[in-house]
Amino acid sequence: MTTPGHLMADEIASQPKVLAEVLSSYGEYLTPVLARLRTHDTRAVLLVARGTSDHAALYAKYLIETRLGLPVGLVSTSTYTAYDTKPALEGVVWIAVSQSGGSPDLVASTEAARAGGALTISLTNAETSPLSDATELHLPMLAGDELSVAATKTYTAALLWLWLLVEGWAEGDLSAAAGVPDWVDAAVDLPEVAEVASRYRFVERLVTTSRGFGYPTAREAALKLMETCYLSAHAFSGADLLHGPLAMVDEDRPVVVIAPDGAGGRTLEPVLEQLRTRGADVCLVAPMEVTATSQMRIPLPSGMDERLAPIAQIVPLQQLALQLAVSRHYDPDHPRGLQKVTKTT
Amino acid sequence: MTTPGHLMADEIASQPKVLAEVLSSYGEYLTPVLARLRTHDTRAVLLVARGTSDHAALYAKYLIETRLGLPVGLVSTSTYTAYDTKPALEGVVWIAVSQSGGSPDLVASTEAARAGGALTISLTNAETSPLSDATELHLPMLAGDELSVAATKTYTAALLWLWLLVEGWAEGDLSAAAGVPDWVDAAVDLPEVAEVASRYRFVERLVTTSRGFGYPTAREAALKLMETCYLSAHAFSGADLLHGPLAMVDEDRPVVVIAPDGAGGRTLEPVLEQLRTRGADVCLVAPMEVTATSQMRIPLPSGMDERLAPIAQIVPLQQLALQLAVSRHYDPDHPRGLQKVTKTT
Repeated sequence: MTTPGHLMADEIASQPKVLAEVLSSYGEYLTPVLARLRTHDTRAVLLVARGTSDHAALYAKYLIETRLGLPVGLVSTSTYTAYDTKPALEGVVWIAVSQSGGSPDLVASTEAARAGGALTISLTNAETSPLSDATELHLPMLAGDELSVAATKTYTAALLWLWLLVEGWAEGDLSAAAGVPDWVDAAVDLPEVAEVASRYRFVERLVTTSRGFGYPTAREAALKLMETCYLSAHAFSGADLLHGPLAMVDEDRPVVVIAPDGAGGRTLEPVLEQLRTRGADVCLVAPMEVTATSQMRIPLPSGMDERLAPIAQIVPLQQLALQLAVSRHYDPDHPRGLQKVTKTT
Repeated sequence: MTTPGHLMADEIASQPKVLAEVLSSYGEYLTPVLARLRTHDTRAVLLVARGTSDHAALYAKYLIETRLGLPVGLVSTSTYTAYDTKPALEGVVWIAVSQSGGSPDLVASTEAARAGGALTISLTNAETSPLSDATELHLPMLAGDELSVAATKTYTAALLWLWLLVEGWAEGDLSAAAGVPDWVDAAVDLPEVAEVASRYRFVERLVTTSRGFGYPTAREAALKLMETCYLSAHAFSGADLLHGPLAMVDEDRPVVVIAPDGAGGRTLEPVLEQLRTRGADVCLVAPMEVTATSQMRIPLPSGMDERLAPIAQIVPLQQLALQLAVSRHYDPDHPRGLQKVTKTT
């Protein structure tokens, strides 16, 4: 008899070690990819992924937009799989992110992109996979086997890899990531998470929100809560929330606000003000430098670079999903209706 | 004393006329835009929009990917407004869609794109606006003043304009849209909608799903239900639904499946099968050519081209949001917490 959620708990706890391993080993894998990118005349970047990996891709989109100034898009795979498009993608860098590298739609769209002239790169946790076989270049997540259906360590490992890839492409200082394992270690076992899990014990509907680099965290936190607790957890960028969905927020629908310390966090000030006006019950996930009144608070480590902060921000929210699921007598290692590898076409 | 929702009802009903007006008048506005695009060496397309207009932009993304084979992305405005990025966008076509043309983040990001070398085009319903002033080229939606807070006629008008723009750019046959006003007329007053509204009277959480060209319809339907009925209405592409959120679907959470007749609809077959396995209560919104068992059905007109079908697909779902809001004693013309023009930065 195993404890429900023990796989997810172990994998959450392993993240500081996994991230330290990525930092000590990335060089040999990243160097040839960066060499190829530096000789490539890039006109645009396309990212393709599903589920948790899609949130890592969204994070990469912000990095590429802000750091490289290139046009970038998240690909709709059905364009290639259902509508059989033959794209003209000379000069495009195509980045596919997947834990398993096994979903047929990712493989088929990546093959179409490569045939259309794109420079293709895959980032997968599986050492070999149909997806890594389909790409010219490959990066391994190095997160070790992931056994829990709810992905945790492959998410933070993918974020760190994508930061290293984009920052290296921009010829930035990769040593800026040296603090990541310690930040994650400081975020992995926060006692405040249990208080939030207790307050949310009977919640059925919840909203998560952030903006900029924090927005992928809001999306991923919502997915974890949907997968493991079967909650209606709804993620919005702070700006999109004000364009309509704000109407559904009331006193009975808690809102988790992820507010980084920096420019993205400051854009959330009008959102927090509107939420207060509507009487929302807010849980603020933010370093103590971010001052705002809220009903609940999960404190993040101080001093994180805003662009690297998402790697630590998600960790207490993974813990929240785990603890809430267990308190509801669900087993987050085996969510109903899901398998570890989802194959869509 | 006015009837709750009468503005929204009138504007829903006006759509066949609005769309006929667009079809009779687009030439003089579209011709110079197409002339400029044909001399433009386009390396990528970026779309920027918020709320309902963002779903029109998503529709345009599928059109551009499948019809032009170009890389295309939906822009995160915070990249420009919060992080002050100076993008290098020579050769990029930048399309901004907005009912009012008044949201500061759309204007600021569009100005940054134009300064970075992008060819900028705006599509707005307001005749003049800060957004149309900021772009080199402008298309008017010609939908007439929209008074209801919940956008309806500007959504379908924007879809038709974007279809005309992309199809014209691809040098296709624009007369293929001639049937649109009649299809919309056939979808505007379906008696089955009242049956679904009755069944959903006490629903608090709901999922919408589709794939390909139908996916923007799922997103827009969910937004309408959030705005007017304060439902937790959650939209997923059929593929994304299987990558995690499926776990939250049970017998007590209805699922609205929008299934076009064509390639996108066929990709929903495995999704419908999984939903049956999980015992979901399904409302199928589809032409009668699409055969699948479901608890409820809203029949769409037959014979619509899959790429044009979204213009008619959304209409019964607008009616569903209206009828459900009124049955709950809400006024969809004045949703709590919302104004007609949302200004985000």
